[in-house]
Amino acid sequence: MAADIAEQPEVYARLLEPAHADPIARVAAAIAERGPRHIVLTARGTSDHAALYAAYLAEIRLGLPAGLASPSAITLFGARPDLSQALVIGVSQSGGSPDLTEVMRVARESGALTLAVTNNPGSPLAEAAELSIDVAAGHERAVAATKTYTAELLALLLLVEGVRGGGRPAAELAALPELAAKVLADPAPEAAADRYRFAARMVTTGRGYAYATAREAALKLMETSYLPALAFSGADLLHGPLAMTDPDVPVLAVVGSGPGGQAMRDVLERLGERRADVLTVGAAGELAVPDVDERIAPLLDILPLQRLALAVARARGEDPDAPRGLKKVTATL
Amino acid sequence: MAADIAEQPEVYARLLEPAHADPIARVAAAIAERGPRHIVLTARGTSDHAALYAAYLAEIRLGLPAGLASPSAITLFGARPDLSQALVIGVSQSGGSPDLTEVMRVARESGALTLAVTNNPGSPLAEAAELSIDVAAGHERAVAATKTYTAELLALLLLVEGVRGGGRPAAELAALPELAAKVLADPAPEAAADRYRFAARMVTTGRGYAYATAREAALKLMETSYLPALAFSGADLLHGPLAMTDPDVPVLAVVGSGPGGQAMRDVLERLGERRADVLTVGAAGELAVPDVDERIAPLLDILPLQRLALAVARARGEDPDAPRGLKKVTATL
Repeated sequence: MAADIAEQPEVYARLLEPAHADPIARVAAAIAERGPRHIVLTARGTSDHAALYAAYLAEIRLGLPAGLASPSAITLFGARPDLSQALVIGVSQSGGSPDLTEVMRVARESGALTLAVTNNPGSPLAEAAELSIDVAAGHERAVAATKTYTAELLALLLLVEGVRGGGRPAAELAALPELAAKVLADPAPEAAADRYRFAARMVTTGRGYAYATAREAALKLMETSYLPALAFSGADLLHGPLAMTDPDVPVLAVVGSGPGGQAMRDVLERLGERRADVLTVGAAGELAVPDVDERIAPLLDILPLQRLALAVARARGEDPDAPRGLKKVTATL
Repeated sequence: MAADIAEQPEVYARLLEPAHADPIARVAAAIAERGPRHIVLTARGTSDHAALYAAYLAEIRLGLPAGLASPSAITLFGARPDLSQALVIGVSQSGGSPDLTEVMRVARESGALTLAVTNNPGSPLAEAAELSIDVAAGHERAVAATKTYTAELLALLLLVEGVRGGGRPAAELAALPELAAKVLADPAPEAAADRYRFAARMVTTGRGYAYATAREAALKLMETSYLPALAFSGADLLHGPLAMTDPDVPVLAVVGSGPGGQAMRDVLERLGERRADVLTVGAAGELAVPDVDERIAPLLDILPLQRLALAVARARGEDPDAPRGLKKVTATL
């Protein structure tokens, strides 16, 4: 897991090279030409958080309604929604989940434009879809996905920016590998891990793009440390689960420098009133990350959180490279 | 909270009367006439789970793509998605959340057909929307929503069946108040509560329609007992968080008699291999609920779970009528 995490600057650099960025730009051009009216995303586990990020991007950057679909409506209950005006995107590191492949097949039959975003271009998911993007993260050794997640984020960002403007947003992203390397050189996450040695639970929170980061951080903590970690959008946290937070519940808050981070101020204030134990992550956070646009921040903010999850697991005597009861490819129907 | 829970059979009976069902049928007819191409739902907290239920209904019963939208893309990041072919439904017991009202306003401007589903027909949300449904649950005393949740479920079911077929699905639902009263007369949830006195966390799970029930049960446990309760679709549970389940993590599994319940068999088997402590709820469950179609089951399955949450809170010495740090109406922007 540590090796996968360390490779992420390289993964970013590789994906930004013309050999990988150009095919994504071509997929983006094909989508722009077809002009879908809305976007449906489908994914499971870590990839679901990349899909959530893409849904925000699609709504904010493309003005296209975007939502996450539950495969079970189609695969279990036989739903046959009319997807003829939709772009249906399946996101999966392995591309091997039978339910996502089935959604892709049904969507294509109904006239949708279908796109697979995977780390395995020869996978059943990629074959079932009309269009396909290879996130080119290389072989991921650990069961807990890290570099495939961030590769999915960058591929989806390149895709959306490509659909929006044509061409690659080269300038803004060129510094990304270097910024990622800088973030990964900071020992702060390891130093922070010790205080969670005896935590019985955890809450993660963020708003907007950062909500995807909060969700993914919670999943990493669960997969590696068996810490029950609850992710809430900052808004939802105020609507009920705030009752749960007290000084004994550590909160990880992703706080950027844009509208999402500003909206988190209220949340932090309410948490402060309750004397909650809060660690902030991001451009405006204690686990500091370079200040970039909030739509790019998820590609950096997750890095210290992956390392925190790994370090917390080690501090608790767990082996994150051999999580209990998990397999790399999960077949759900 | 106990009084609100006990009123639910009455709430069902009232909503099925022509005085309330007919206006819903008229809204359904108006929607059918306009023929939206997809549905976007927006809600927070408990109402978000009613919205999730409606998304399954829309896809399975109407063949309309349906997804839950995050208000923040619009309210914080200024997204202006083209919703001209969408039915946008805001679900909120109070109808007082400024962010949902803003989504409704933006959606209407973009040409969407807008519908508010609330327990307060004079609320800002209802006024911002073109169409409005009153779920008629009466005044809810407790902060933790119970009867407004089930009233939202029934209103949304009546709506979708109305859009589908015209007329009211009277026969199938006529027995609902009586079935609900029967479920509420069963003392099993109170008897089950004691074993969770010292639980440090909990997992809830279900597939398809039952996933909404699992999510809502988890929220009730969090709001009343401050128990960190993690809800996963049965499929997602196998993709990572399964590592977290061990004999010390109680699992509440919602298991119906239809396709969703059948798909849960794999999940129960995997949980069994890990010797997890599982309590099943539903038509095929230990906390037994009458066997109805899985699309109606959420209206009954949640009842023993609401009572379980209340009883667990009491067993732990908490006062569910005065949850820490919560208000009835939460204003998020």
